[in-house]
Amino acid sequence: MLEIEIKVKVADLRPIRDRILAKGASLLCEGTEYDAYYNSPMRDFSKTDEALRLRRADDCALLTYKGAKIGSGSYKAREELNIRVESIETMDAILEKIGFKKTAAVQKFRESYRVGRATVTLDQVEGLGTFAEIEAAGELSQQEAEREIERIAEEYGIEGERLTLSYLELLLLKQR
Amino acid sequence: MLEIEIKVKVADLRPIRDRILAKGASLLCEGTEYDAYYNSPMRDFSKTDEALRLRRADDCALLTYKGAKIGSGSYKAREELNIRVESIETMDAILEKIGFKKTAAVQKFRESYRVGRATVTLDQVEGLGTFAEIEAAGELSQQEAEREIERIAEEYGIEGERLTLSYLELLLLKQR
Repeated sequence: MLEIEIKVKVADLRPIRDRILAKGASLLCEGTEYDAYYNSPMRDFSKTDEALRLRRADDCALLTYKGAKIGSGSYKAREELNIRVESIETMDAILEKIGFKKTAAVQKFRESYRVGRATVTLDQVEGLGTFAEIEAAGELSQQEAEREIERIAEEYGIEGERLTLSYLELLLLKQR
Repeated sequence: MLEIEIKVKVADLRPIRDRILAKGASLLCEGTEYDAYYNSPMRDFSKTDEALRLRRADDCALLTYKGAKIGSGSYKAREELNIRVESIETMDAILEKIGFKKTAAVQKFRESYRVGRATVTLDQVEGLGTFAEIEAAGELSQQEAEREIERIAEEYGIEGERLTLSYLELLLLKQR
């Protein structure tokens, strides 16, 4: 699956949330997500632009591989493989055993809304601030996806600096 | 969790199965298991005596890491980490992406019975023949485990050559 999205640094999530709710969009989910990132023993994922992430959200544990970003401009597209796993602790132990090292952690409070043919996500990221993401539905072509993202960005006032770096990369940059 | 077990090459599973059923032991599960083994890009698991296995059994997908055998004599003990995962296909794709190569496959028809404080497993392994395994319950001490295994081996006639090699190793040896 190719994920096409924009990420915008915003000063305040409230006006965006108000507009989304005023239009009657539905809250898909909200909650705290705790993400641990692992680096490979054979190639540095921060150089190959890959990511291996283990996410804890509510009762759910999710393992995700992300391929290198292939986006152009302010859009970001990358291959993503997601799988639910039974236990964070056991998956973490297996990853350590096969040589993967936990390198960073990102914690955020996330709200997701279904808006048009996309998902809008409002994130409060520990140590980084507030962000809005618009991710087009997977079944759209790239052109349809970009058009839908622009339409939503304008309609809901999701404007500001567009970032193609991940939260992990932003945190690592900040720590330098 | 440390797994303490013996594996015995047997000519015929029927007399063992008959004795187990005559004692009223309960069938835990039976079915075909398809195991794929992966090797690490950084160290050869066949040399370090580790294993990373993805098992398909019925509707269930199970990822397992096994540490090096630390058994002595005819017993086999090794660290084992098991986790259910949502999908064989996605887990396989993630393993390939992070550099692990599928090196071998083992298919068998397995029946498992709860017998005393152990699990007795009767396996028909494609290309290898028939085997009975006795695995002591995880909560037993090593001494208790070995005693319980010997008691069951004698009571149920699970006698013959004891092997500490895994089916994977036996298959690889055969292919040489």
